Amino acid sequence: MKEFCASEIVPKTEKLEDTRKMPKDIIKTLANFELLGMVIDPEYGGLGTDVVTAGIAVEELARADPSCSIPVLFLVGTSWGHVLNKYGTEEAKKEILPKAIKGEQIIGIATTESDIGSDLGSMKTKISKKGDKYVVNGEKMYISGVAEAVEYGGGHVTLAKMTPEKGTRGMSLFYLPLKDTPGITPTYVEDIGREAISCGGFDIKNVEIPKHYLIGEENKGFYIVHEGYELARGLISLVCAGAAAKALENGIAYIKERKAFGRPIGKYEGIQFKLAEHHVRIQALRDLGYKALWTYDQEIQGNASRFDVSMAIAMAKSVAPIWAFDAINDVMQWQGAFGYTKECEDQKAWRAVRSFTLAEGSSEIMKLIIARELLGKEFLAYR
Amino acid sequence: MKEFCASEIVPKTEKLEDTRKMPKDIIKTLANFELLGMVIDPEYGGLGTDVVTAGIAVEELARADPSCSIPVLFLVGTSWGHVLNKYGTEEAKKEILPKAIKGEQIIGIATTESDIGSDLGSMKTKISKKGDKYVVNGEKMYISGVAEAVEYGGGHVTLAKMTPEKGTRGMSLFYLPLKDTPGITPTYVEDIGREAISCGGFDIKNVEIPKHYLIGEENKGFYIVHEGYELARGLISLVCAGAAAKALENGIAYIKERKAFGRPIGKYEGIQFKLAEHHVRIQALRDLGYKALWTYDQEIQGNASRFDVSMAIAMAKSVAPIWAFDAINDVMQWQGAFGYTKECEDQKAWRAVRSFTLAEGSSEIMKLIIARELLGKEFLAYR
Amino acid sequence: MKEFCASEIVPKTEKLEDTRKMPKDIIKTLANFELLGMVIDPEYGGLGTDVVTAGIAVEELARADPSCSIPVLFLVGTSWGHVLNKYGTEEAKKEILPKAIKGEQIIGIATTESDIGSDLGSMKTKISKKGDKYVVNGEKMYISGVAEAVEYGGGHVTLAKMTPEKGTRGMSLFYLPLKDTPGITPTYVEDIGREAISCGGFDIKNVEIPKHYLIGEENKGFYIVHEGYELARGLISLVCAGAAAKALENGIAYIKERKAFGRPIGKYEGIQFKLAEHHVRIQALRDLGYKALWTYDQEIQGNASRFDVSMAIAMAKSVAPIWAFDAINDVMQWQGAFGYTKECEDQKAWRAVRSFTLAEGSSEIMKLIIARELLGKEFLAYR
Amino acid sequence: MKEFCASEIVPKTEKLEDTRKMPKDIIKTLANFELLGMVIDPEYGGLGTDVVTAGIAVEELARADPSCSIPVLFLVGTSWGHVLNKYGTEEAKKEILPKAIKGEQIIGIATTESDIGSDLGSMKTKISKKGDKYVVNGEKMYISGVAEAVEYGGGHVTLAKMTPEKGTRGMSLFYLPLKDTPGITPTYVEDIGREAISCGGFDIKNVEIPKHYLIGEENKGFYIVHEGYELARGLISLVCAGAAAKALENGIAYIKERKAFGRPIGKYEGIQFKLAEHHVRIQALRDLGYKALWTYDQEIQGNASRFDVSMAIAMAKSVAPIWAFDAINDVMQWQGAFGYTKECEDQKAWRAVRSFTLAEGSSEIMKLIIARELLGKEFLAYR
Repeated sequence: MKEFCASEIVPKTEKLEDTRKMPKDIIKTLANFELLGMVIDPEYGGLGTDVVTAGIAVEELARADPSCSIPVLFLVGTSWGHVLNKYGTEEAKKEILPKAIKGEQIIGIATTESDIGSDLGSMKTKISKKGDKYVVNGEKMYISGVAEAVEYGGGHVTLAKMTPEKGTRGMSLFYLPLKDTPGITPTYVEDIGREAISCGGFDIKNVEIPKHYLIGEENKGFYIVHEGYELARGLISLVCAGAAAKALENGIAYIKERKAFGRPIGKYEGIQFKLAEHHVRIQALRDLGYKALWTYDQEIQGNASRFDVSMAIAMAKSVAPIWAFDAINDVMQWQGAFGYTKECEDQKAWRAVRSFTLAEGSSEIMKLIIARELLGKEFLAYR
Repeated sequence: MKEFCASEIVPKTEKLEDTRKMPKDIIKTLANFELLGMVIDPEYGGLGTDVVTAGIAVEELARADPSCSIPVLFLVGTSWGHVLNKYGTEEAKKEILPKAIKGEQIIGIATTESDIGSDLGSMKTKISKKGDKYVVNGEKMYISGVAEAVEYGGGHVTLAKMTPEKGTRGMSLFYLPLKDTPGITPTYVEDIGREAISCGGFDIKNVEIPKHYLIGEENKGFYIVHEGYELARGLISLVCAGAAAKALENGIAYIKERKAFGRPIGKYEGIQFKLAEHHVRIQALRDLGYKALWTYDQEIQGNASRFDVSMAIAMAKSVAPIWAFDAINDVMQWQGAFGYTKECEDQKAWRAVRSFTLAEGSSEIMKLIIARELLGKEFLAYR
Repeated sequence: MKEFCASEIVPKTEKLEDTRKMPKDIIKTLANFELLGMVIDPEYGGLGTDVVTAGIAVEELARADPSCSIPVLFLVGTSWGHVLNKYGTEEAKKEILPKAIKGEQIIGIATTESDIGSDLGSMKTKISKKGDKYVVNGEKMYISGVAEAVEYGGGHVTLAKMTPEKGTRGMSLFYLPLKDTPGITPTYVEDIGREAISCGGFDIKNVEIPKHYLIGEENKGFYIVHEGYELARGLISLVCAGAAAKALENGIAYIKERKAFGRPIGKYEGIQFKLAEHHVRIQALRDLGYKALWTYDQEIQGNASRFDVSMAIAMAKSVAPIWAFDAINDVMQWQGAFGYTKECEDQKAWRAVRSFTLAEGSSEIMKLIIARELLGKEFLAYR
Repeated sequence: MKEFCASEIVPKTEKLEDTRKMPKDIIKTLANFELLGMVIDPEYGGLGTDVVTAGIAVEELARADPSCSIPVLFLVGTSWGHVLNKYGTEEAKKEILPKAIKGEQIIGIATTESDIGSDLGSMKTKISKKGDKYVVNGEKMYISGVAEAVEYGGGHVTLAKMTPEKGTRGMSLFYLPLKDTPGITPTYVEDIGREAISCGGFDIKNVEIPKHYLIGEENKGFYIVHEGYELARGLISLVCAGAAAKALENGIAYIKERKAFGRPIGKYEGIQFKLAEHHVRIQALRDLGYKALWTYDQEIQGNASRFDVSMAIAMAKSVAPIWAFDAINDVMQWQGAFGYTKECEDQKAWRAVRSFTLAEGSSEIMKLIIARELLGKEFLAYR
């Protein structure tokens, strides 16, 4: 994996500019190395690994691509690929998974809307039956991979209300292809970072999808989608760990060379104490991240409960982007004025990692989950 | 000032994109409101105010321009305009100051080089006498306002070694015009923020300047330049205070409206405790900033020592960008995925404020100054 | 004040051991220097100063007595002396204030109970009319100065429910003498710090008090008591500032002398950066504290609203014990194993200051007040 | 271990007051449960376990004894028992270890002196040969277990200079019995916490010890003593983890019950977010601690280097007392005024844990070690 990243990914990321779309050849490169179907069953072309192994892969990708665009593409595809693999209909899996694994299409996730983030129960998009099909109406926003799905093909695992009066117990999950789909109108936003993957949304106007695109049972979508989110959060923890560890390595190399007042700045305690503090936290973060993914694997094997998984994942994700951001922020600081320029590799990671206190469940939500597990559901602040 | 900013500056900043150069009409607008010569003596066209008044102006500009590009132009011009006004030759002042005050030229500062930031004693640029002129050779880097000086006219207050064997006691300060100057070759870098003012450097090859461009006595440049830096640092403290206070106001408006789980997110202690913490720190920062500028004024009037000024300024500057950044960072967080997009005004301030732990003396240098004043020079870690 | 503390207070505090009661001669010393009636009207024997002046006094007392026991006695007496002076009946004032000012009796405050701290609306103690008297029943707990009031004389400004069904709008404030009062049974607890003033509670069984001990109107007690709390909180902010500033001075002296690895530990950035950070925060805290008391004075003079006062006071008190504790904690750290022994003066201040995140309104309540002022009452998390 | 602690230790700690000396029956209780020789070879009466197992024991002891006095006795005995077991002479081991394992004597460590803590190279105590004995002169200070060794028997593993001109390469380690030893004069200090074990020092005047008390080769003491320190630091990390985890459990129980403003305070995000943050850090700390001890075991088995051990141990110890202290500090805060009284169990742990940023290598030294391993020896700030 390290050699693959060094020879195949790093050279490509050096040229990755502000493309706002993942270049197709990078997706193909990932597919050729069999990264896109790691956790998918072999019968659909995947490797069938555990998720810890996917964690190792995404950590390395984060070290290789400071913009974290490739890791995001990977982790979203892996997480909802896993959900499709576990809950999708046979027909859908045969149709979708092999193409995604070969890098011909992408798989994304679409739950958030303009006015709702973590509070999925307030969403407005609706899905209803119409003969032997479903019809979807609404809009989704702040979604990764929209341009890629629209242009290269693929679709988004999408959540919508089927039985609105039942709140989160009335939501269904389904696959929504974006390319050439009548009724889909994409819009784009520019994110502060992760600038080689698209971010945007789409209007959904009377879009019809076949029944076999439903993922899991009707009205169970809210629960199923969290299995994807939890995997995504666990993988994000390792993206953060990888990105920060790489930045610290860059920082170490820099402070050993750069001199001020006649000695390398690495000799000053003001800098080396920070380095030590960040090193401890980033290594602790790695441990938390792998423990979270290991717990996820344990639950798949029946050795852990969903609550164990929620707890372990929330623990890692609650600190991952914060500890990583702080570490990278100091590495930038050590580099002085250069650290503030776009030439500095670490500022890419800094901007990218900033997104992960928001993406796939905010830091605040992670703390709510941890507190809920420690105190009991009845202590949720919003009840 | 508030009305001026609301009517004249805010509309212009809304259109300020990634120009990497301050539009000339904005400079003119500032000049028309008599902001560019506030601390300059009336005989050269200035208002002759104290620096506290300049602080009030720059705080408002920071509230009006989230990218902080206009505040940076203002504070650099004010700080080294003040140095020119105090130490420049009569001939130079008559030549330079009126044009700068009218917004026809800009005044910048050039001390840093590719390999040196705060450790000015290690710089390589040299100035030497040649008949009745001076000749300059070297390079400067990470300088604000290069493109503006090259294109609109003006120049940079520049520091170079005149008697290299004497270290910081052998440096001289002088005015170096960039526009149409033979031997000046500009280069540019893109900063992460402050995207409407240029950042870059210039090669200096056998550039000749007249004797009257010398600022202060020969070999006293290192001491004189710090009077400019201290003023700049004090003004930066209020840029940070203004930018953060504005972001908190934006945040307050947002969290009163935005709902999650059935109530405005402003009702959750997780958010409102952070708001309270930031409010206290930003108000404390404002106090520190104005106290610093007031001490600066006191020294001008003979009521405070240079050490008093260094201490008061370093205190404010040491926390200003850190407290402000943290506050704005949380305001972004409250806005969820939108806060991570370029549409969000606060992320501009977030990127801008990040620069001020580096610019005009790093946070680390500020702490060294404070410790030096508390412990004595002999305790400087690098001695 | 400095000389007074140096000559009269410091020698006494050196002998102040774990007395759990303020020695009478110290109270007398304070009285002789006219500190006990600073804010009381001259007609009752006071000096009639503003509260900023009381702040100056308490800051010095905190520098002189690291256990902060004397400052606590002073600030409680000052705050509720002020309340008595403003709202007490003429008869009560003539009876109580001159004795308190002369140090013959003490004035305390009694609102908290075993099960309630900041949530005064849930208290159980009740007061009711009985002929031309009032009768009080209940218990109070975690009260300063109980032993002093029981033994030397004096009493506590006490809050109880008069019209329970009206919640906080049905509470009355009154003076409750403890010495030789039938129905009063004191109990004591040992606090972690502030070991030269008593802490405890008292059972109140059918205690009768005369009508003229009522402070302010019936059922207005909840509002009146907050005027005392706000003054106490403002004074506490300066206790924290004084205690921490003194500890930093001790720390500076120590790190200039103590050597490790061949040089004074003050030369290491790991220590001097912390010193710089604490110095900035403690100076900022002082500014916040005096601004808070100044706002309090402004309100007395009709130039500020009660909300202005609440905000300014809450701002200072919200950070005071936290910033001060952190500073003192590091000063202890610099002193190594000695800093952890009871011989070290700074550990007294460390234990004392710890109390102020709880006493007179917790840090959490301070944040709620700040958020309430910024967002509006309707955003209080508990509504 | 849990049952043992619940039935044998907890009841005893409830009665443990400010004894300043470990009661003999508690030492016996530990011995009877075979805890005192866990890592000692069976031939001397020990269990011969790995150090991870000792970590499990000490974590439980820390949960059972909030004053951490028993854990300190255990970890010091274990760490230098291990050193004696590995480097002691056969004669010494047969004489000392069985008694220590049976709880008849204690084993301590004596390196620090009044003027030196972590900088062992500056110590003044000297050891020299005299015929077939060694003679020791000097003083030791801030030593745990002095009273116990003086009264019950046992001694301290002691470091002194044998070849002073060789600095740290001229130090020797030896066993120094304190009870009834001519020339030993003990003195005592009162620590802020850990109040059931003694702390003090002793003058050493012409004390003669037999040759077989030398531990390891002459002049190798500095290196050997670090093997004990590293084990002690690793065990301390788990003391911190255990004490903090117990406090959080206490806190959880409390905030579920205690009400304010009509609901349990555990429902407020201001409290539950802190709980979540502390839970994550304390679990991460546990992982760091066990990883450190596991690395220690790996080195014993030849699978890791001394540098691996230093790094892993320093990582855990650098954050252990800080994260634990912060967690316990908030648990105290949640308990309001009660949390500030000596009745509150958690304040004992709070005072105890405070010692561990100093004891057995300060937090600053831990950061130096981490930075040294990351950057190289030549970057040590004091070189």
